[in-house]
Amino acid sequence: MSKKVLVLPGDYIGPEIMAEAVKVLDAANARFGLGIELEYGLLGGAALDECGVPLPDETLARAREVDAILLGAVGGPKWDGVERHLRPERGLLAIRSELQLFGNLRPAILYPQLAGASSLKPEIVAGLDILIVRELTGGIYFGEPRGIRTLENGEREGYNTYKYSESEVRRIAHLAFDLARKRDSRVCSVDKSNVLEATVLWREVMEEVATEYPDVELSHIYVDNAAMQLVMNPKQFDVMVTGNMFGDILSDAAAMLTGSIGMLPSASLDQAGRGMYEPCHGSAPDIAGQGKANPLATILSVAMMLRYTLASPEAAAAIEDAVSAVLDQGLRTPDIHSEGTTVVSTTEMGDAVLAAV
Amino acid sequence: MSKKVLVLPGDYIGPEIMAEAVKVLDAANARFGLGIELEYGLLGGAALDECGVPLPDETLARAREVDAILLGAVGGPKWDGVERHLRPERGLLAIRSELQLFGNLRPAILYPQLAGASSLKPEIVAGLDILIVRELTGGIYFGEPRGIRTLENGEREGYNTYKYSESEVRRIAHLAFDLARKRDSRVCSVDKSNVLEATVLWREVMEEVATEYPDVELSHIYVDNAAMQLVMNPKQFDVMVTGNMFGDILSDAAAMLTGSIGMLPSASLDQAGRGMYEPCHGSAPDIAGQGKANPLATILSVAMMLRYTLASPEAAAAIEDAVSAVLDQGLRTPDIHSEGTTVVSTTEMGDAVLAAV
Ligand SMILES: CC(C)[C@H](C(=O)O)[C@@H](O)C(=O)O
Ligand SMILES: CC(C)[C@H](C(=O)O)[C@@H](O)C(=O)O
Repeated sequence: MSKKVLVLPGDYIGPEIMAEAVKVLDAANARFGLGIELEYGLLGGAALDECGVPLPDETLARAREVDAILLGAVGGPKWDGVERHLRPERGLLAIRSELQLFGNLRPAILYPQLAGASSLKPEIVAGLDILIVRELTGGIYFGEPRGIRTLENGEREGYNTYKYSESEVRRIAHLAFDLARKRDSRVCSVDKSNVLEATVLWREVMEEVATEYPDVELSHIYVDNAAMQLVMNPKQFDVMVTGNMFGDILSDAAAMLTGSIGMLPSASLDQAGRGMYEPCHGSAPDIAGQGKANPLATILSVAMMLRYTLASPEAAAAIEDAVSAVLDQGLRTPDIHSEGTTVVSTTEMGDAVLAAV
Repeated sequence: MSKKVLVLPGDYIGPEIMAEAVKVLDAANARFGLGIELEYGLLGGAALDECGVPLPDETLARAREVDAILLGAVGGPKWDGVERHLRPERGLLAIRSELQLFGNLRPAILYPQLAGASSLKPEIVAGLDILIVRELTGGIYFGEPRGIRTLENGEREGYNTYKYSESEVRRIAHLAFDLARKRDSRVCSVDKSNVLEATVLWREVMEEVATEYPDVELSHIYVDNAAMQLVMNPKQFDVMVTGNMFGDILSDAAAMLTGSIGMLPSASLDQAGRGMYEPCHGSAPDIAGQGKANPLATILSVAMMLRYTLASPEAAAAIEDAVSAVLDQGLRTPDIHSEGTTVVSTTEMGDAVLAAV
């Protein structure tokens, strides 16, 4: 039975890192007889340049048909001047929303080989393994009404709406609890329920869903305290679950704790477990075209895709082991370079993983 | 000319740390002939227990009359069960709003004597000195409509409104630029203008106000990237200015970078420079009544009050120097204790500062 994967390389370093990830995926495909067929599409700035919109109908139509999507990265200064509704990020937000990819998994893992790369003291981050589960299709990112209006006194006001319904919270809660069961069975829900009504309901529904998971421990933390605790003692967390906006902020902070955001993959899943996979990092315009980009987060996104959506855990493990092997060999792209290791280019890193698969 | 200060000790460790701060304020008052008169009032849980509301009319009336307010900390588990509109935090939010204390200054400074207390590597945080300027009376904290409603399909939805008008952004912008002039003349404005319209206007107004400060450099950063950069390389920032919600999160993260949140004061100013001063930390229910609380943040809040609102920079400097001196003597409350230093109680720490003033 053949499986289809839509590849969306995106902008700036997107195509560079994607080329390496596709190499590795092809190799796994052949070695494990996965029967995966690749299709290519446009998203973000690349789509805007070619088709005049950041999410072309054709990309969306294909995205709905395939089993999984592999995304590089979108956006960058080239499109700073375009109208707001045409910006590359809009394409990303639209595909998340159209496909109802509500469950965003963002692991923050410290690779032992890269322990030195963190800005935190080794004892604070050694062995770090957090999974942030971010709600991705609701909250203030998509809430209506929104816009900029002129008030009666003549001045302008910008406004957005932060909202969550019970069913939106319930489905992300279930995802977080299910994932926690495969880990250390602890869920910490992040809200600001001492101030925001939207998160009062969030907390209530989390409590309600928790009764169905008596084996999983649920705790609650205010978002400001969560940001502090991530800096002070990140290892206290197992799964953190939160809304779209808080998840955006906390997952980036958590990823950076590891010092190796160039290593971290992510998954965005729908109710059926179909998903879009992409690196946690962005399109890095400053290093595009120089062979400096780290392809490992995209390669690890391939592994995540094989595990979560394509039900090929063996192939996933082979890729993850290959990444670990090249790190053991001392190969490093510039972002994770440290004394005593060998700097390699994007392509050389991809080739090394390929050889190890 | 006499000046009036309203003292609001608040809850849990609030009265303990306030007792020490008042000792030090009394001493400075006598030594520098400041003519300060103290009044006492109730806020938060203490007010709720006594008067049935977290911000009694009498407290608010006095607060409007005095020159400055000194606050301990409010809130705690004792009042977990009370109705939302009566919770201690509501008193804090109400006093901020009623007095239009829109400008919240939260310094994140690393005391050289405490360099080891940070969870970050010494070279990342040595010499850290950031000032976060948080808008405190607008944004999603106060935006209407808000609440929990039942949708047509029968399920509930929690909702809040994030909004900023031009004039609200303009006044916080001016405050940030004015403060930057007294420092390194760099303002970094934090928004999420790639997603939120409320912050599109925010960015526009920041640009507009910047034209009046050609000597100050303005840059912009998305909030997710700001959280990352604070972890990776916090020393790149001078003044950061942002809205109420993002400021809540980022200022706590920044404070924690120093490892000594028990050391950090804050100011909340109105248009005329009158203000409320309080430690950055909370009411710490877990250590209340044990003599373990660190009074230095509250003592340094007194210094900040003398400098910003009461125009007594000499007295402010004397208190700050005294704090530095006791740190040099190796005296530490448990939160900032490290090898080779002497653990002292809340009272002993207060007495040591008093002796040094
Ligand atoms: C590009 C931007 C719209 C996006 C977001 O805020 O969700 C990004 O920061 C992310 O986290 O994937
Ligand atoms: C107690 C709470 C309402 C408050 C806030 O969120 O503003 C606190 O976290 C703060 O930062 O002063």
